[in-house]
Amino acid sequence: MAMADHNHPEIEMDCQFPYNQPVKVSELGEFHLIDRLARAAGAGFTSPDVVMGPGDDAAAWRTHDSVLLGTTDTLVQEVHFSEHASWRQIGWKALAVNLSDIAAMGGTPQYALVSLSLPGEAMVEDMVELALGFGELASRHNVYLLGGNISRAPIVVINIAVIGAAHPAGILTRKGARPGDKIAITGWLGSSAAGLRILSEGLSLASEQAAPLKKSHLEPEPRIKEGQVLASCGVQAGIDISDGLAADLEHVCAASGTGATVYVDRLPVRQEARAAFPSDYLDLALGGGEDYELLFTAREVVVEEAIKHLGRSGSCPVSIIGEVTPGPELKFIDDKGNPYRGSARGWDHFSKGG
Amino acid sequence: MAMADHNHPEIEMDCQFPYNQPVKVSELGEFHLIDRLARAAGAGFTSPDVVMGPGDDAAAWRTHDSVLLGTTDTLVQEVHFSEHASWRQIGWKALAVNLSDIAAMGGTPQYALVSLSLPGEAMVEDMVELALGFGELASRHNVYLLGGNISRAPIVVINIAVIGAAHPAGILTRKGARPGDKIAITGWLGSSAAGLRILSEGLSLASEQAAPLKKSHLEPEPRIKEGQVLASCGVQAGIDISDGLAADLEHVCAASGTGATVYVDRLPVRQEARAAFPSDYLDLALGGGEDYELLFTAREVVVEEAIKHLGRSGSCPVSIIGEVTPGPELKFIDDKGNPYRGSARGWDHFSKGG
Repeated sequence: MAMADHNHPEIEMDCQFPYNQPVKVSELGEFHLIDRLARAAGAGFTSPDVVMGPGDDAAAWRTHDSVLLGTTDTLVQEVHFSEHASWRQIGWKALAVNLSDIAAMGGTPQYALVSLSLPGEAMVEDMVELALGFGELASRHNVYLLGGNISRAPIVVINIAVIGAAHPAGILTRKGARPGDKIAITGWLGSSAAGLRILSEGLSLASEQAAPLKKSHLEPEPRIKEGQVLASCGVQAGIDISDGLAADLEHVCAASGTGATVYVDRLPVRQEARAAFPSDYLDLALGGGEDYELLFTAREVVVEEAIKHLGRSGSCPVSIIGEVTPGPELKFIDDKGNPYRGSARGWDHFSKGG
Repeated sequence: MAMADHNHPEIEMDCQFPYNQPVKVSELGEFHLIDRLARAAGAGFTSPDVVMGPGDDAAAWRTHDSVLLGTTDTLVQEVHFSEHASWRQIGWKALAVNLSDIAAMGGTPQYALVSLSLPGEAMVEDMVELALGFGELASRHNVYLLGGNISRAPIVVINIAVIGAAHPAGILTRKGARPGDKIAITGWLGSSAAGLRILSEGLSLASEQAAPLKKSHLEPEPRIKEGQVLASCGVQAGIDISDGLAADLEHVCAASGTGATVYVDRLPVRQEARAAFPSDYLDLALGGGEDYELLFTAREVVVEEAIKHLGRSGSCPVSIIGEVTPGPELKFIDDKGNPYRGSARGWDHFSKGG
């Protein structure tokens, strides 16, 4: 999820499109569109029970004695479905991207509402596979299917809303970064993009090299346990890597009113990805997206504590990749101390495709 | 909402489609498909906190000290969007159908998560109108937009999930009907279908005749206050009329293990609809659907109490239209005491279109 990021600096550019001229969605771009629609839909109107409204990975609101989280995401055939993915993998991923948003708040996913739109020509066995993929991941994380709906559409569209509980220690937000914080990341960057490249370019690699990368792309693992450990250690700023490290870090900095310095030689990239793409693995790590790792920032002592806890629980590695600065610039520094000149800086669903 | 209606008698017919033969969604039909997918997705796996799982208008679950409700519904361009509806009306209706599901549980809607899929060629001003329509209805019922997501798709698809609070007195479920209950309905039946006929056939009627019918179709009013009054009076069985009176009453009877007798001359049909469609207004009332009125059943004394309360609050009329029987048949009786031979019995999204 991520809607109406009111602090996003690009929003100001909105004024180049006056309200009285017809403008296509593709001309306006995703973030401006979100801002404009959220304002029209009344996102400014608030409630004292809302802890976190639009603009973060998930929303949070207070009930009598707890804080709940809610998020929603959609996969659209011909846009988000990889032609290399099985229906079971699509069902898995449709839930995984939502669970990752709950993980990015440090919470526990509990319930799902599933909406499936599909043509009458769709094959029942494919849709059953889709449901099995969903069910496999749901049961792994004790996510209960509350219900949903099925409707007719010319293409398959899967929308899932997930509701969960916030960690009692607090939530990880995009606006929680402070200058001086260390920037850290769980697991590996660029694996999903490398897997997609291998699949779409039909690269013939040894299966032990290709398998973990393809799996990262087709069946991402939401970092739920890791998010909970971060919240319990007192981490307050976090986001999941869906758009790419550079773009997602920009979201955090924009929301927090900070800048950041990232040392690209510290980016954790799997040996398999380095070997398969020796000249551009850093671009895959910075801009590839869909890694569903957790980026977080905190004081060094807190990050060290989190690393210790995650190491103890046999979880994934955690890498410190840079620092939060007063900003507002985001700097990417190479191993010689020079600005890194990568090509990729995330993506925008409309302007750049995807 | 309505997924995995395990008590639905038609489900047994599922066995005519063995699992090992390729079957199209259109051949299986909506209710069989829902049942099969829900089982594959793990809908059988339960939690002690779930008060109502798949198969009712909305789901219900317990938090520490309250019961929450959740529902989701989707409108798809070229399938659910009337060509006569403005974008603002589509935005209104996309929320209205969800609020109606909360109303059908007797609850209070509180929060919405909105997913909008759309082509880059879509016009921003249209999407802003859509958001304004959503916002107008949301602010009327104090529904707070928690967030959502925007994605690219070849057609516009709006999915909304609404979360609300159950009435402290309890929820209205489809399985709550008991033989001997009176069957009652809020407001008017067939208005939406009459409005759709007027719009799609381009009938030239006096505007004071056409306007309330067109409005019923394009801007339905969810019966939220009415649902709350029903819950407070002790009504335990309810559903909203989305598929049509006959089909929705069948859902209640199937879930409750009962039958029903309905006297068609007692169906509340607006004078405007009777005048515009003198030969088939009863078919519109029984099968037209999309009225978003509340059908409920209760002991006569409870129904009378509800009628008194709703009359006092200046709300809509309530009509008693029949009785719950031990069943399992649904009988529709005409004014001469003979079986009514209507043509329409609801619709199925895939087999019959819509």
